[in-house]
Amino acid sequence: MNKDIYRKRLKSPLNKEVLAFFSSLKDDSWIAEEDIIGTEVHDIMLFEQGILNNKEIQQILISLEKLKKEYRENKLILNGAQEDIHPFIEQRIIEEIGIEIGGKIHTGRSRNDQVSVDLRLKIRKELNALTEALLILFETLFNLSSDSLDVIMPLYTHLQRAQLGSFSHYLNAYLEQILRNLRRIEELYHRINMNPLGSCAIGGTSIDIDRSKTTELLGFDSIIYNSIDAVSSKDFIFETLTSLSMIALDFSRIAEDLLLWSSKEFDYIEIDDQYCSVSSVMPQKKNPDTLELIRSGCAKILSNAFTSATIIKSVPTGYFRDFQDLKPILRDSFNLLLIIIKMLNGIFSTLVIKKANMRKAVEQGNILALDIAEYLVQHYSLPFRQAHEILARLSMNAEKNNTLIDKNALEAMILEVTKKKIQLPHDFETLFEDPVKCLENRISQGAPSKKEMKYNLKLIMTEKQDMVELFSKRKEKIEKAEALREARIREIINS
Amino acid sequence: MNKDIYRKRLKSPLNKEVLAFFSSLKDDSWIAEEDIIGTEVHDIMLFEQGILNNKEIQQILISLEKLKKEYRENKLILNGAQEDIHPFIEQRIIEEIGIEIGGKIHTGRSRNDQVSVDLRLKIRKELNALTEALLILFETLFNLSSDSLDVIMPLYTHLQRAQLGSFSHYLNAYLEQILRNLRRIEELYHRINMNPLGSCAIGGTSIDIDRSKTTELLGFDSIIYNSIDAVSSKDFIFETLTSLSMIALDFSRIAEDLLLWSSKEFDYIEIDDQYCSVSSVMPQKKNPDTLELIRSGCAKILSNAFTSATIIKSVPTGYFRDFQDLKPILRDSFNLLLIIIKMLNGIFSTLVIKKANMRKAVEQGNILALDIAEYLVQHYSLPFRQAHEILARLSMNAEKNNTLIDKNALEAMILEVTKKKIQLPHDFETLFEDPVKCLENRISQGAPSKKEMKYNLKLIMTEKQDMVELFSKRKEKIEKAEALREARIREIINS
Amino acid sequence: MNKDIYRKRLKSPLNKEVLAFFSSLKDDSWIAEEDIIGTEVHDIMLFEQGILNNKEIQQILISLEKLKKEYRENKLILNGAQEDIHPFIEQRIIEEIGIEIGGKIHTGRSRNDQVSVDLRLKIRKELNALTEALLILFETLFNLSSDSLDVIMPLYTHLQRAQLGSFSHYLNAYLEQILRNLRRIEELYHRINMNPLGSCAIGGTSIDIDRSKTTELLGFDSIIYNSIDAVSSKDFIFETLTSLSMIALDFSRIAEDLLLWSSKEFDYIEIDDQYCSVSSVMPQKKNPDTLELIRSGCAKILSNAFTSATIIKSVPTGYFRDFQDLKPILRDSFNLLLIIIKMLNGIFSTLVIKKANMRKAVEQGNILALDIAEYLVQHYSLPFRQAHEILARLSMNAEKNNTLIDKNALEAMILEVTKKKIQLPHDFETLFEDPVKCLENRISQGAPSKKEMKYNLKLIMTEKQDMVELFSKRKEKIEKAEALREARIREIINS
Amino acid sequence: MNKDIYRKRLKSPLNKEVLAFFSSLKDDSWIAEEDIIGTEVHDIMLFEQGILNNKEIQQILISLEKLKKEYRENKLILNGAQEDIHPFIEQRIIEEIGIEIGGKIHTGRSRNDQVSVDLRLKIRKELNALTEALLILFETLFNLSSDSLDVIMPLYTHLQRAQLGSFSHYLNAYLEQILRNLRRIEELYHRINMNPLGSCAIGGTSIDIDRSKTTELLGFDSIIYNSIDAVSSKDFIFETLTSLSMIALDFSRIAEDLLLWSSKEFDYIEIDDQYCSVSSVMPQKKNPDTLELIRSGCAKILSNAFTSATIIKSVPTGYFRDFQDLKPILRDSFNLLLIIIKMLNGIFSTLVIKKANMRKAVEQGNILALDIAEYLVQHYSLPFRQAHEILARLSMNAEKNNTLIDKNALEAMILEVTKKKIQLPHDFETLFEDPVKCLENRISQGAPSKKEMKYNLKLIMTEKQDMVELFSKRKEKIEKAEALREARIREIINS
Repeated sequence: MNKDIYRKRLKSPLNKEVLAFFSSLKDDSWIAEEDIIGTEVHDIMLFEQGILNNKEIQQILISLEKLKKEYRENKLILNGAQEDIHPFIEQRIIEEIGIEIGGKIHTGRSRNDQVSVDLRLKIRKELNALTEALLILFETLFNLSSDSLDVIMPLYTHLQRAQLGSFSHYLNAYLEQILRNLRRIEELYHRINMNPLGSCAIGGTSIDIDRSKTTELLGFDSIIYNSIDAVSSKDFIFETLTSLSMIALDFSRIAEDLLLWSSKEFDYIEIDDQYCSVSSVMPQKKNPDTLELIRSGCAKILSNAFTSATIIKSVPTGYFRDFQDLKPILRDSFNLLLIIIKMLNGIFSTLVIKKANMRKAVEQGNILALDIAEYLVQHYSLPFRQAHEILARLSMNAEKNNTLIDKNALEAMILEVTKKKIQLPHDFETLFEDPVKCLENRISQGAPSKKEMKYNLKLIMTEKQDMVELFSKRKEKIEKAEALREARIREIINS
Repeated sequence: MNKDIYRKRLKSPLNKEVLAFFSSLKDDSWIAEEDIIGTEVHDIMLFEQGILNNKEIQQILISLEKLKKEYRENKLILNGAQEDIHPFIEQRIIEEIGIEIGGKIHTGRSRNDQVSVDLRLKIRKELNALTEALLILFETLFNLSSDSLDVIMPLYTHLQRAQLGSFSHYLNAYLEQILRNLRRIEELYHRINMNPLGSCAIGGTSIDIDRSKTTELLGFDSIIYNSIDAVSSKDFIFETLTSLSMIALDFSRIAEDLLLWSSKEFDYIEIDDQYCSVSSVMPQKKNPDTLELIRSGCAKILSNAFTSATIIKSVPTGYFRDFQDLKPILRDSFNLLLIIIKMLNGIFSTLVIKKANMRKAVEQGNILALDIAEYLVQHYSLPFRQAHEILARLSMNAEKNNTLIDKNALEAMILEVTKKKIQLPHDFETLFEDPVKCLENRISQGAPSKKEMKYNLKLIMTEKQDMVELFSKRKEKIEKAEALREARIREIINS
Repeated sequence: MNKDIYRKRLKSPLNKEVLAFFSSLKDDSWIAEEDIIGTEVHDIMLFEQGILNNKEIQQILISLEKLKKEYRENKLILNGAQEDIHPFIEQRIIEEIGIEIGGKIHTGRSRNDQVSVDLRLKIRKELNALTEALLILFETLFNLSSDSLDVIMPLYTHLQRAQLGSFSHYLNAYLEQILRNLRRIEELYHRINMNPLGSCAIGGTSIDIDRSKTTELLGFDSIIYNSIDAVSSKDFIFETLTSLSMIALDFSRIAEDLLLWSSKEFDYIEIDDQYCSVSSVMPQKKNPDTLELIRSGCAKILSNAFTSATIIKSVPTGYFRDFQDLKPILRDSFNLLLIIIKMLNGIFSTLVIKKANMRKAVEQGNILALDIAEYLVQHYSLPFRQAHEILARLSMNAEKNNTLIDKNALEAMILEVTKKKIQLPHDFETLFEDPVKCLENRISQGAPSKKEMKYNLKLIMTEKQDMVELFSKRKEKIEKAEALREARIREIINS
Repeated sequence: MNKDIYRKRLKSPLNKEVLAFFSSLKDDSWIAEEDIIGTEVHDIMLFEQGILNNKEIQQILISLEKLKKEYRENKLILNGAQEDIHPFIEQRIIEEIGIEIGGKIHTGRSRNDQVSVDLRLKIRKELNALTEALLILFETLFNLSSDSLDVIMPLYTHLQRAQLGSFSHYLNAYLEQILRNLRRIEELYHRINMNPLGSCAIGGTSIDIDRSKTTELLGFDSIIYNSIDAVSSKDFIFETLTSLSMIALDFSRIAEDLLLWSSKEFDYIEIDDQYCSVSSVMPQKKNPDTLELIRSGCAKILSNAFTSATIIKSVPTGYFRDFQDLKPILRDSFNLLLIIIKMLNGIFSTLVIKKANMRKAVEQGNILALDIAEYLVQHYSLPFRQAHEILARLSMNAEKNNTLIDKNALEAMILEVTKKKIQLPHDFETLFEDPVKCLENRISQGAPSKKEMKYNLKLIMTEKQDMVELFSKRKEKIEKAEALREARIREIINS
C-alpha cells in the first residue's frame, strides 16, 4: 500500500517527511471501527437506493466485515502511505475486491462528511462511557456520604474555618456537581447524535442518496440538514471539550480538597498507599501524587478545550485540514478524564477518615460564632448587624480562648454594643458545648443538619434516577440501530 | 460612608491603596438592581416567616424602593469605603432607617449566597437580551437568504473553490448555527435560573428562613439545595462564558468569511461605508474594520472563558475572593457579544452582494468536476473512484482552460483510465453550460439546490418558532414573579 | 470635533453605535503623551530635513506643547467622533493653527507606525516603573531574609513536610526569582526600545525623512528597519505580556504559600489586618483576601498574554484593526502587576512570623529522616539506598512517635536491612535533638545552613547591583534624549 | 524489574491502573540519555570528593556506559513497574553491580534536582537543534529574497491592497522575525544552561558534594544556587515554551500569507505538489494542507505554553508531581516546531512565484494613491492632509477606472479642495506608469526600493553572523565539557 488512491491530480507524491507530518493514520485507530460502520451503512443505503446492485453490496460488506473483525481482534495495522484512515480503508477494499466494485464504496460521500460521522459516533460512545464512569463514582460517594452523616468537621471559606459542618455535606456538594455534569452530558449528547453523512464535500451530491436511511441505521436522532453546516461547523467538538472541562474543573477542586486534608497540617484524611508515591531520598515522605496528577490532568483537559477553540477560530467557513488536529485532542481528553474518574473512585473507596482530628478542629477556635450571633437574634431580637459586631469584637479580644461562649463576657459586650442589658440563661455555656447538637439547629433547607443532609441525599437520588432513565434510552436507541444494522448486513451477505 | 460596617473584628481599616485593589464597588453597578431586588425578596420572606415584624419590613422596603428608584434614574453613585455593593447597600439602609431595623436586613443570609443570587438574576437577564439580539439577527439573515436563493457562488474548502453552491446556502449554515446557540442558551438558562439564596455563608443558618418563598418571588425554577454547592460551585459562570464563546466562535468565522469576500481579490460583497474605516495616509483604502474588531472581540470572549476557568480551578471547595474577578469578566463578555451581534446585523442589513463577480468565479476553473464525475457514475456506471481519476487527470492536464467539459478529451481519458469506450451524448457540453441548471441536479437532502434550500429554510423556521415559544415561557415566568413581587411590596408598604 | 478628518473616501460616517464599538479614544489616554511626543519629534525631523519651514515647525510645536500641558494637567478630555487618539490630535492642531500648517504634521508617517512608536515608548516607561517596583519589593524581602536566618521551619514538597529548612531560605528563593525577572525585563527592554517610526503605512514613504534623527531624539537604541516588520510584527507585545506573566506566575505561587501559611492549620504567619477582609456574617473570620485577589489577578495577567496571542495569530502579515484590542490588554496587565507588587510589598513589610509554630512543626514528625540516613552513609559507608530503606521502614513502623532517633530501633533495622551489625554512638540521640544544629550540617552549596544562606544573600546582592547598574543606563539614555528634545523644542519655539 | 526500589515506606504497591496513570516511564525516553550523563557526572564528582572509592566509581561508570550504549543503539526498552526513568536506571545498575555499590549512585541527590538537570540538558540540546533549523530556513529565505528584488506586488493591510511593494520586502520581514527569535533563544539559552544538581530534594544535603565540579563537567554556565529555587521554580519551562510560541506565532502568520496567496483569488504563488493534498471526491482540488497543519500546529505550540502555565500556577513553592506533565509538553512542542520549520523550508525551496499575477494586481486599482499624494506634497507644498483628501475623493469617484492618474481630473480636484490652481507637468501621467520606477522613489530607510532592500539584506546578514558566532560559542562549551567528561570516564574505567 504505497500510493494514495485519491492523489491523481498531483504530479508528485508527498515526500516521507511531509507524510509523517501530514498523516493522522496512527491516530485514526481511535475512529477506525466507526469509519467501517459508517461505510457499511452508507453502502447499504446506496444499495437500497439502487445505486449499488446486490452483488456489489454483498462483496463490499463481506470485505468490510472482515476488516471490522481484524480491528476488533487488534490485527488491523494502520500504516502505509495514506494520509488518514479513509483512503486506507477504501484502498484495502479495492485491493481485495477490485476497482470495479471497490471503487464504488465512496459514491455520494466525501471525507469531509465521513470524518464528521465517525467523530460523532465516537463521541457518542465516549459520552456513554463517561456517563457510566460518573455513575460508578456517584455510587461510591453516595454510599460514603450516607455513612458519614455524623462526621462533623469545619466548612471552609477563604481557606479559613467558617462554619461547623460535616464531611457528608461536602460529599453531597460533590454529588450535586456530578448530577449537573450528567445533565449537561445528556443535553450535549442529543446535539452530537445527529447525522452529517450525505453532505458530501460541502455542497451535497447529485447522486440519489437517502440521508434518512443512514440516520436510522446509525441510531442518530436526526439529520444535520445544511451541507455546509455539516462539514464546516465544529462547535460540537468545542462543546464536547468544554463539557469535559466543566467536569475537570469540579474534579480539580475536589483533588485540591483532598490534597489539603491529607497534609500533616490538616490531617483529616489518609489516602491509601496504592494511590501514593514516595521520595527517592526522604524516607519519611508519603506523597499523594495521584491527586496531583489529577490536578494537572484537569489542567490539560481544560487546555485542550481552548486549543480546539484556537484551531477552529482560525478558519473561515468550510472544511480545513486544521481540523485533523482536533481528533487526538478529543481522544486524549476522554481517555484522561475516564482514568481520572477511576482514580477518584479508587481514592474515595479506600479513604481513611480521621474523625477525631476533624472534631478537634471543630472544637478549637470560634467556629460557632455565627450560631451564637443567630441565637442572640432569635432569643433577644437583636439586629443581626449588632449581634455580628458583638461576636466579632469578642473574637478579636480573645482569639485564642473560647471566650465566645463565656456568658459574662458576652453579656458585657452586648451591653457595650447595644446599650441593652440582656441576661443570658444560666446554662448558656452548655448550649454550645456539643457541636453535634449545635448542628441540628441549622434548620434551613440544604444546611448540614442531619435531617437536611438526609433530605439532600433523597433529592440527589431522585435526580440520579432520572439521569439513569434518560441514559438507558440513549443506550437502547444505539442497541436497536446496531441490531437493525447487523441483521441487514447478515441478510445481504447471506442473500 | 467611610467605614465598612462588617469590619468589626479587625483593628485597622484597609488602607486606601488596598481598598482600590480590593473594591469591586464600581463594577458592582452591573448587579446593583439585582442586589436590591434580592434583598427585598429575602426580607419579605423574613417577614412572612415572622422574623421581621410589619413595621420593620415596611421601613425596609420603603428604603430599598427608594434606592431602586435612584438606581434606575442613574442617580445612585457607588463610591465609598465599602469593598462591594453588599455593605454599601446595607449601610445606606442603616443610615436611613437606623440600626435597630436596618441592622436586620442581612439576617439569615451572607454575602456568599447574596452575590450568587445577584449573578444568577443578572445572567438570566443577559441571556434573555442575548436571545432577543440573536432573534433579530436571525430575522435579517433569514430574509437575506430567502432573497438570495438564485445567487450562485463557489463553496470553499481549504480556501480553494470546492463545489458550485449559493450565497443562501452559506446564510442557511449561519442560521443553523444561531439555532443551535439558541438551544444551548435555553438549556443553560434553566441551570442558571436556580436559587442559591438561603445557603448563607456556606453552611446554612439556624434562622427559620424559607427558601421556597424566595424561589417563587424571584421566578427561579428551583432551589440549589446543598449550601456548599450553592456558594462554592462556579460552573454556572464558566458554562455561561463557554456558551458565549461558542457563539463567538461562529461569529468570528462568519467575520472571516466576510473579510475574505470583501477583499479586492474575492470582491464578492461590499461592506457599507458606515461599518468601514479608512487609512490616515493611503487615500484609496476602505478597510472593513468592524469585521476585524468582531474577530478580535470574539478572541476576547473566548479568552474570558479561559480566564474564568483558570481562576475557578485555582481554589478548593469553598468561597474565595478570587471569584470577585469573575463579575467584570461576565459583564464584559455579555456587553461585547451583544454589540457584536448588533454590528453583524447592521452589516448584513446593508450588505451589497456582487452577484456578477460571484458568478464569474463559478465560471472560471473546474468547479463542476465532481458533478461531471457523478454524471459518469450515474449514466455509465463507472466506479466513482475511476470517475474521480478521470476528472482529476483532466484537471491536472488543463488547469487553465475549461477542458473538463471538452467531450473528446473526456472520452479519451475515460478510455485511458477504464479501458472502456464510452460515447457521451452529442450535447454533452451544453449539459454543464448553465451552472444554475447544474445546481438543480444536486438533489441530496441539505444540498444547495433551490428546492432543498427552500426546505432547509422551512426547517429552520420551524425550529426557530420552537425556540421563540420556549423563550416566551422564560419571559412569562419572570414577569409573573415580578408582578407578584411588586404587588407584595405595594401591599406591605401601603398596609 | 464631529468629523473624522481622515474619512474623505467614504460617503457615510460611522453611525453612533459603530463609533462606540470602534473607538479606542478613551483607552488612548494611556498613550496620549507618547503620541504627542512622537509627533513633536517626527515634525522636528521634518523641519531638519527641510520639509517643514521654520514658521511651520514653530506653530506646530507651540500647539503640541499646549496639548501636552493640558494632558499633564489632566485637562485633555478625549471625546469626539474620532476613532482614536491620532486623528483627534491632528484635528486639534488643524483647528488651532489651520489646515495650511496643521495639515502638514502627518507628512511621511501613518497611524500604523505612529501607534507602534507610541506603544514602544509607553511599554518602555512601564517596564522601568515595573523594575522600580520590583527593586522595592526586593529590598523588603532582602531585609526580611537577613533578619530571619534563624527562623527554622519545614520545607515542603507535595504539600508534605520534606526537609528541615528556614524561612529565609524561602525568601531567598523568592529573591532569586525576582532577579531572573529583572534580567528578563532588561533583555526585553532592548527589543522594545527600537524605532518603528518612518515605516509609514507598511511600505515606507517617498518623502525624504530621516529615521536616525527620530531614533536619537526618542532615545531609542536603534531602528526597526524593514517597514513591513515595523508595522506588522506584534511579537513585542506578546513578549511583553509573557514577561509579565512569568512574574505573575512566581507571585501567584508566593501568594499561595502565604495563604497556606496563614490558615489556622499551618498558622505560621499572620497577615496584617489592613490586607485582610471579614465575613458579612461569620464574626470570627479574618480572610486574607488580598492574597486571593493577587492569585486571581495573576490569572488575569496570564490570560491577557494568551488573549494577545490569539488576536495576533488570527491575521496574516500586515496591519489589522484587531491590534487595537492589544492596547487595553497591555495597560491592564501593567497596572495590575504594579499594584500586585505594591500589595506584596505591604504584606511582607507587615508580616508577623510565628516562629514558635514553625519550630513546633519541625519538631513533630520525622523531618530529619534524610539527615539521619545521610549520617549512616557518612559514618558507616552504608549505601544510600539501604540507608533510605532503613529510615523508610522505621518511618512506616512508627509514624507517630519520633522513634527514628531511637538508637536501639535504628540499630535493629540496620541489621535487618543490611545484615550488618553497626553500633551507633552512645549520644546518638542527642545528635539530632537540636534542629538548628542539624541544619548547620547541611553543607552543600545553596542549602539552608546559615553559612550558605548568608552566601546566597551575598550572591543575590551582587546580581542585584548588576541589574541596578543596567537599569541606570536605561534611564540615563531616556533622560538624555528628553533633555535633547526639550532643548530643541525650546530653541525652535524661541527662535 | 517489578518493584519500585524507592517504595519502602508504603505497605501496598501501586495497582496496575494507578501505575498506568502515574508512570512517565515511556515519555522519559526523551531524557534518558541526559539522565545517564547526569548520573555519571554526579558520581564522578562523588568520587573526586572521596565519597565513592575507585572501585565503586569504576563499576558504576562501566554499568552506566553500557546503558548509554544500549540507549544510543535503541535497545533500551523502558518498561517496568517504575514510575519514571530515575528508579528504572538506579534499579538496573543495582541489579547489575549489586546493592553494595549500585546503592550508592543516588547519594547526595534526589529525583527533584535530577529531573531538573535532565530537562535543562535536554532543552539546551533542543534549543541548539532549533537554532540550526532556523538558520537553514534563514538561508532559504535569504536566497529567495536576494533573487526576488524585482518581483513587485501589493503590500496588504486589513487584507486590502495598501502600497506598492515587493515579494522580497515580505521575505525580509520574515528574516527579521527569525533573527529576533534567534536572539531570544540566545538569551533564554543562558538562563537554561545553569546547574540545579546538588540541591537534592529541596533543602540540600549534608553529604560533602561539590556543585562546581558537576557544573564544569556538564558544560553549564553556572549554578542555580538556592536549593528551593532549583527544584521548585519552573519558569524555565514556561519561558522555553513561550519562546517557542513566539516563533510559532510568526510562522502561523507566514502560513496564513501563503495560504491566501495560493488561493485562486490571489493566485500569487503555487505550493509544490509534494506539500499539497487532494480531495477524496472533488477531482479539481489541490489543497495546501501542509500550511493548514502548520497553522494548527502553531496553535498547539501556543496552547502548550499556556497549559504549562496553568499547571505551574496551581501549586505553591515546592516540588509537585504536577510537574511531570510538563515533560511531554516540552517534547511535543520542540518536535512539532522542528518539523514545521522543515516544512516551511521545503515549501519556500520549491515555491513557484507567479510574477505576472502579482504585477497585474499592482496595476489594477489605485495602489499608487499615496505616492501621488506625496508627489503633490513634494512638488507643490500641499499640506499632506489636503493631498490625502484630493486623492481620497478621486478614489471614491472613480473606483473602477485608473483616473487617479488622470491629469485633468486631478487638477480639478486640487482646485476644489485647496482653492489653488496647480498645473501638473505635461508628462504627469507617465510619471506613474511604471510601478518599478515608482518604487524607486520610496527612499525612506527600510522601504521597498531596491536600494533599501539591498541594504536591509546587508543588515540582516550582519546580525545573522553575530548570532552564528554566539551559537558557535554555545556549541563549543558543550563539546568541551563532553570531551572532558568522556576523557574522565575513560581514565577512570581504564585505571
